[in-house]
Amino acid sequence: MSEGRPKVAVEPKSGRFESLEEAVVRGGGVVAPPEDAQALVWADPHRPQDLPELLARVDGIEWVGLPFAGIEPYVPYLDHERVWTCARGVYARPVAEHALMLGLAGLRGLATYARATTWSPPQGHNLVDGKVTVFGAGGITEELMGLLQGWGAEVTVVRRRADPFPGAARTLALDDRLEAVAGADLVILALALTPETEGVIGAAELAAMADHAWLVNVARGGHVDADALLAALDAGELGGACLDVTEPEPLPDGHPFWTHPRVLITPHIGNTPEMGIPLLADHIADNVGRLAAGEELAGVIDVDAGY
Amino acid sequence: MSEGRPKVAVEPKSGRFESLEEAVVRGGGVVAPPEDAQALVWADPHRPQDLPELLARVDGIEWVGLPFAGIEPYVPYLDHERVWTCARGVYARPVAEHALMLGLAGLRGLATYARATTWSPPQGHNLVDGKVTVFGAGGITEELMGLLQGWGAEVTVVRRRADPFPGAARTLALDDRLEAVAGADLVILALALTPETEGVIGAAELAAMADHAWLVNVARGGHVDADALLAALDAGELGGACLDVTEPEPLPDGHPFWTHPRVLITPHIGNTPEMGIPLLADHIADNVGRLAAGEELAGVIDVDAGY
Repeated sequence: MSEGRPKVAVEPKSGRFESLEEAVVRGGGVVAPPEDAQALVWADPHRPQDLPELLARVDGIEWVGLPFAGIEPYVPYLDHERVWTCARGVYARPVAEHALMLGLAGLRGLATYARATTWSPPQGHNLVDGKVTVFGAGGITEELMGLLQGWGAEVTVVRRRADPFPGAARTLALDDRLEAVAGADLVILALALTPETEGVIGAAELAAMADHAWLVNVARGGHVDADALLAALDAGELGGACLDVTEPEPLPDGHPFWTHPRVLITPHIGNTPEMGIPLLADHIADNVGRLAAGEELAGVIDVDAGY
Repeated sequence: MSEGRPKVAVEPKSGRFESLEEAVVRGGGVVAPPEDAQALVWADPHRPQDLPELLARVDGIEWVGLPFAGIEPYVPYLDHERVWTCARGVYARPVAEHALMLGLAGLRGLATYARATTWSPPQGHNLVDGKVTVFGAGGITEELMGLLQGWGAEVTVVRRRADPFPGAARTLALDDRLEAVAGADLVILALALTPETEGVIGAAELAAMADHAWLVNVARGGHVDADALLAALDAGELGGACLDVTEPEPLPDGHPFWTHPRVLITPHIGNTPEMGIPLLADHIADNVGRLAAGEELAGVIDVDAGY
C-alpha cells in the first residue's frame, strides 16, 4: 500500500523528532531510514555539521527539508544534486505577534511599570490610529499587516527597492530610511541581515525618530548599532527599544541594555520551540504531500543565492 | 452671529480646560460664563463636590456633560431638571489596546523578561489563533473585537444575560462563567462593577482557568478576589495576572502583587489623560453640535438607574 507514498527520513534523532515523523505520515509519506529514503527532513537546527556526513553516505535523497527560516550555517552544504527547502515564512506569525506585543509594551510604559514597586504617574502612548514603520518586506511584515488590521495604523514599509507592499500606506527604499522613520510611533525591524542592512539603524536613524517612538528588533542584532542606541536613549532621541535579538547572543551579563530603564530584552523568543514545532510540522506535512503529488515544494532555496 | 449657537460653560478651570473650550467652539457653540450658559461641561473629574454648588447658584443649565465613563461619585448630584451625559464608550479604544497589550505581554513572558538581567530559556504562549474570554459587553469589548480582528482568535463574551455579542464565537451568561474561562488563553475583565459583579473572579474561576492562561483586569479592582488570586498563582492554577486596576488604588507599597514574578501592575493607565483628553474633546464637540441641531445627545445618563 505504500508504493506511491514518499519515503522520508527524519534525522538526526532530536527533541522535535516525533512530531516531524507524524508530519511525514500526515502528509502521506512513510518514515524510512536514510538509506532507503528519497527525502530527508533535518530535525535538529543546531547540528549543521552532521548533514554533509549523512548525505555522503547515502544515495537517493532528492529533497532536503531544513527547519530554519534563516539558513546561514547550512549554506556551505547546499548542492545542485537535489532540491533544498527551508522554513521561509513558516514562523512569521508568532514573530509578528511578538514584535507587535513588544512595540505596544514599550509605547505603553511597561519597561517602567514592570519594574516598579510603587504606584507611579501616567505615561505612555497609544498605537491605535498611529504610525508604524516596518523594515523588511517578507513574511513577518505580511503577518504584521494582518495583526494591525484593527488598529487603523498607517504603515510604512522600507525595503531594498520601493516596490509597493500590499496594505502599506507607502513603501520607501532603504536609502530613504531617514524619511521612513520620522514621525513613526513604532519602528519595527523584520528584515534579513546582509552586508547592505548591517547597522541599518545607527545614530542618524535614531536621531530622526520621534522622541516618544519605540524601536523593536526581531530581525538580527547586527541591524542596530548598539552604542549609538545607548547614546540616543540617553539623549532622549527616542522613547525606547525592545530587542528580541542582540549581537552577540546571548547578550552578556552586565551589558547596559539589561538594566536600562527604557530597554526591554527578550531572549530571541519571537518564535519559541513550543510555538514553532507545530508550524514546522505543518510545513513538512504540506511538502510531503506536494512531493507525493509531484508538485513544486514550498520554501525552495535558491542554491546559488544561498537563501 | 451667535444667536443659534449654544452657550456652553466649561468649569471648573482645570488642566483640560483649554481643549474643552476649543471643543465647544469646534462643535458650533460659544463659551459662556455659567450664569449665561444653557449647558455645562464639567472639566475636572476629581472635584465632584463642587458641581452641586455651581448648579445651585445658576439657572438655565439644561445639559451637564460629565467627563467620565464611570460616574459613581456624581450619582448623588443627578437630577431630573436637565439632561446629564457621561463619556460612556469614549475611552474604550485606548483601554482595549491596553488590555490586549497586557494580555500579550503576560502570555509572552514579559513579567519575567522585563525584570531579568541575564539571558534565560524560552517561555511564553501565542495568542494567534487562540481563545479569549471577555467579561462585559460594552465599548471596551466592542473595541477589543476590532483589535483582535487579525488574530484569528475565538472570542467568548460573558455578560449578565447570554444575548449574542457581535463578532463573538459564543456568549455566555455570568452564571456560566466557569465554563467561559475554561480553555481560554486570556481572560479579560471589562465589565461594570455592581453588587452582582463584585468578586466575580474568585477561587473557583481561577481554578477553572488553563494553567498557562493570563487574567487581565481593566475594569475595577473589586472584580477580583486578591487573596484568591495570590493563592491560585502560587498553586500554579493560571499563568499570571495583569492588573491595571486594584482595590484599593493606589495599590499600597509592599503589596505582594508588586514583586510577584507572575503579576504585572500598571497604575490605572488604560486611558491616560494624554490619550483621553482628545477623545473627550471630540465627544464634547459632537454633543455641542447635537445640542445646536436639536438632536439627542450621546451618552445620556439614565438618572434613576444611575448610569
